[in-house]
Amino acid sequence: MADTPDRSGEDPDEAIMRATYRALSTHGYADLTMQRIADEYGKSTAAIHYHYDTKDDLLAAFLDFVLGRFKDAVHDVETTDPEDRLELLLDGLLVKASEHTELLVAMLEMRAQAPYNDTFAERFRENDAYVRYLLETVIDQGIDAGAFADADAEHVARVLVTIVDGARTRAVVLGEETALSTARRAATEYLAATLDHRPAE
Amino acid sequence: MADTPDRSGEDPDEAIMRATYRALSTHGYADLTMQRIADEYGKSTAAIHYHYDTKDDLLAAFLDFVLGRFKDAVHDVETTDPEDRLELLLDGLLVKASEHTELLVAMLEMRAQAPYNDTFAERFRENDAYVRYLLETVIDQGIDAGAFADADAEHVARVLVTIVDGARTRAVVLGEETALSTARRAATEYLAATLDHRPAE
Repeated sequence: MADTPDRSGEDPDEAIMRATYRALSTHGYADLTMQRIADEYGKSTAAIHYHYDTKDDLLAAFLDFVLGRFKDAVHDVETTDPEDRLELLLDGLLVKASEHTELLVAMLEMRAQAPYNDTFAERFRENDAYVRYLLETVIDQGIDAGAFADADAEHVARVLVTIVDGARTRAVVLGEETALSTARRAATEYLAATLDHRPAE
Repeated sequence: MADTPDRSGEDPDEAIMRATYRALSTHGYADLTMQRIADEYGKSTAAIHYHYDTKDDLLAAFLDFVLGRFKDAVHDVETTDPEDRLELLLDGLLVKASEHTELLVAMLEMRAQAPYNDTFAERFRENDAYVRYLLETVIDQGIDAGAFADADAEHVARVLVTIVDGARTRAVVLGEETALSTARRAATEYLAATLDHRPAE
């Protein structure tokens, strides 16, 4: 979700993804139409259908795109220090999300459709597994390096994504402006208790 | 707008609420119609419209009903010990919810509509404020009684509802069967760290 410089301005897939982002942010999921995406794209719906058969195909690609942007941002993190990496991952999941509240609204609508839409459900499970893998890996590295206290890394990672998902849900449903910063503080407190990890001031 | 339903078996409001619960559990929110609620109620849609003008009026009353049931359950808790009450509240929010997974699915659909539906949004905010009030009160009581370490009770309550909301979202979106038990364990760990509270075995 992080904004990074446009690397391939001419790529129609990327241009359609950016148009989908704008259309979702403006109209939400329930009122999203191929026409509205085409309007943002600046071309006809036929130009979109050339790349994506259905709206759900396009939205599945969009979910992959959002995860891809997150992966890019993770790869751009240059430090290999487990403590710093864990902090940066949590900032990426909680702090940067606050810059994209309209997208959080549309994403919650899509998430609520997961029980009825296998394509969405599969994407959300894959994305969640990837984020948990990142967290668990950096926690295990920190434990191995002696930077963190010994802990059940798989459980700690699950608790962190639970806090992230709770904060994002609350930001949307309750319009709670402090939901993400409360969650960031909660993650810090939880990691101090379970990993004896205290971020540098 | 209907009055809060009482608990007498013959009350049409309560019978309609129970029919709404069954219809929501079976069909979800997006496919809910007055006809489907009437089918569960065993009467005509006119019999429902006599009590509720619109589907959204009925669903707003349903959200009040769900909170009312939770309040009843809280009042039925006989202990006044802050440590026991806190445990029972968390069990009510996380353990009992696992018995109503179909309702969690429909509730997440309704929650995702909050940015577009002021009536729903107002209910969700009221319900959340009530649950946080209960948690904050029992935490403050425990601090005053010396059972809990001194802490920011308002913040601790917010973290607990964030964990609850995260678990409920994950149970629905990811079909994660362990989401609620993971969250229950996380709440225990968080309270041990922040309140020095360790439930009796």
